[in-house]
Amino acid sequence: MNRDAALANLAIVLVRPKNPENIGSAARIALNMGIERLLLVGEHLPERELMAKTATHNAAHLLDRIEVHRRLDEALADFSVIVGTTARHGRLRMVETNPRHLAETLAPLLKSNRAAVLFGPEDTGLTNDDLKFCHMVSAIPTADFSSLNLAQAVAIHCYELYYGLCHAKIDAGTYPQLANSHELESMHLYLEGALRSIDFINDKNRTYWMTNIRRFFGRKRLSSKDANIVRTICKKILLHHKGANSIDPGDP
Amino acid sequence: MNRDAALANLAIVLVRPKNPENIGSAARIALNMGIERLLLVGEHLPERELMAKTATHNAAHLLDRIEVHRRLDEALADFSVIVGTTARHGRLRMVETNPRHLAETLAPLLKSNRAAVLFGPEDTGLTNDDLKFCHMVSAIPTADFSSLNLAQAVAIHCYELYYGLCHAKIDAGTYPQLANSHELESMHLYLEGALRSIDFINDKNRTYWMTNIRRFFGRKRLSSKDANIVRTICKKILLHHKGANSIDPGDP
Repeated sequence: MNRDAALANLAIVLVRPKNPENIGSAARIALNMGIERLLLVGEHLPERELMAKTATHNAAHLLDRIEVHRRLDEALADFSVIVGTTARHGRLRMVETNPRHLAETLAPLLKSNRAAVLFGPEDTGLTNDDLKFCHMVSAIPTADFSSLNLAQAVAIHCYELYYGLCHAKIDAGTYPQLANSHELESMHLYLEGALRSIDFINDKNRTYWMTNIRRFFGRKRLSSKDANIVRTICKKILLHHKGANSIDPGDP
Repeated sequence: MNRDAALANLAIVLVRPKNPENIGSAARIALNMGIERLLLVGEHLPERELMAKTATHNAAHLLDRIEVHRRLDEALADFSVIVGTTARHGRLRMVETNPRHLAETLAPLLKSNRAAVLFGPEDTGLTNDDLKFCHMVSAIPTADFSSLNLAQAVAIHCYELYYGLCHAKIDAGTYPQLANSHELESMHLYLEGALRSIDFINDKNRTYWMTNIRRFFGRKRLSSKDANIVRTICKKILLHHKGANSIDPGDP
């Protein structure tokens, strides 16, 4: 596999980081590890000077190319593989991995898909609402004491991804083009509408069922075509039950 | 192998770090990765407050246990395996490794030896004079752009050492007790004296030959007994040639 092509499909997404220095540090380590796409979810990019110190001169140009999004769903729209990072193990019913195995998992997928690795704020990490977009979560193995600095967590992940992609043995077969986050979110919206229309879910049990359904589909790695089939069936259910106009959740 | 026993034989040595925040960061990541021995080579420990911010509350107790040494040779006296870290490849005629292979190499050695991993100052890295104590150097693989932050370099090394020691498969055999740095330095002192006494080395070629000899013995991993044999032979040469009293380099 072409390592550089795989690295070009990888992005680091910093979700609401509090400390501008950590953005600079992330830019520096990402560039060191051949990852040049950096996204920030937040109101705006902090003052350049506050980030530039830790980015150092060499990585400063990356700061000018950071993609800023107010909403996580917008940031993730064109990514097909979304990885959350967390310090906590076993709390989530998601595919759990660690940076080393993540690199092995992503290597074949990056042939034809864009992947985003998400890092949450320094104090709280990613929320459940952030994690709902994720197809798997990666936790860095640590001794009993587990509290990694944001910049260090980014460093260890970038290092493992780079190292893993340098050494990955991927056969020449074709790898599936997975649905991107935009297509999946649209599918989930129709799915929720359809499940409401048949009174399977309501405001009380919505979070429980939608979380489980998201994780189920997350594990299954749907292609664009798969997602479209599910979406079309749900649309039909909605049309059949109540007439599409009144409850169409919108076609994002 | 007992992972915790191996980790207890590992130490991180920060050589003349400029930024106290990096000492705090190093303490935090070391503790996360089960490494609790931290040494500082420098005039004195910076103000606690400057380090504590990045160490965070959890790793603060490690700051009180940092061992401070003015001289690197003193810091390293009781270590038998000494690893330098560098961003530059191929410049040195030393055993070169990377953090992943380093963990594999150290795993069996840590059964009966103390190992120190050295990190140089943020701006210049370890000098040749620092590296002369090292038996191998480890460089983090990076893309073309290579300029890692000190705290990130410490993070990646600690992570790999912890991960490697958690997964190392070491058979139950005995592993050699290697000479420690104090014994090796004493040996080198007598060796230099002996080689001078036979006019093999002089002030002009001293650095060249002693560097090569150090690297040769560094690769060979001498036991305490080996080092003592070499030292005793050199002492005999010195005695034989000129009489020990006049040129005895001192018995450290």
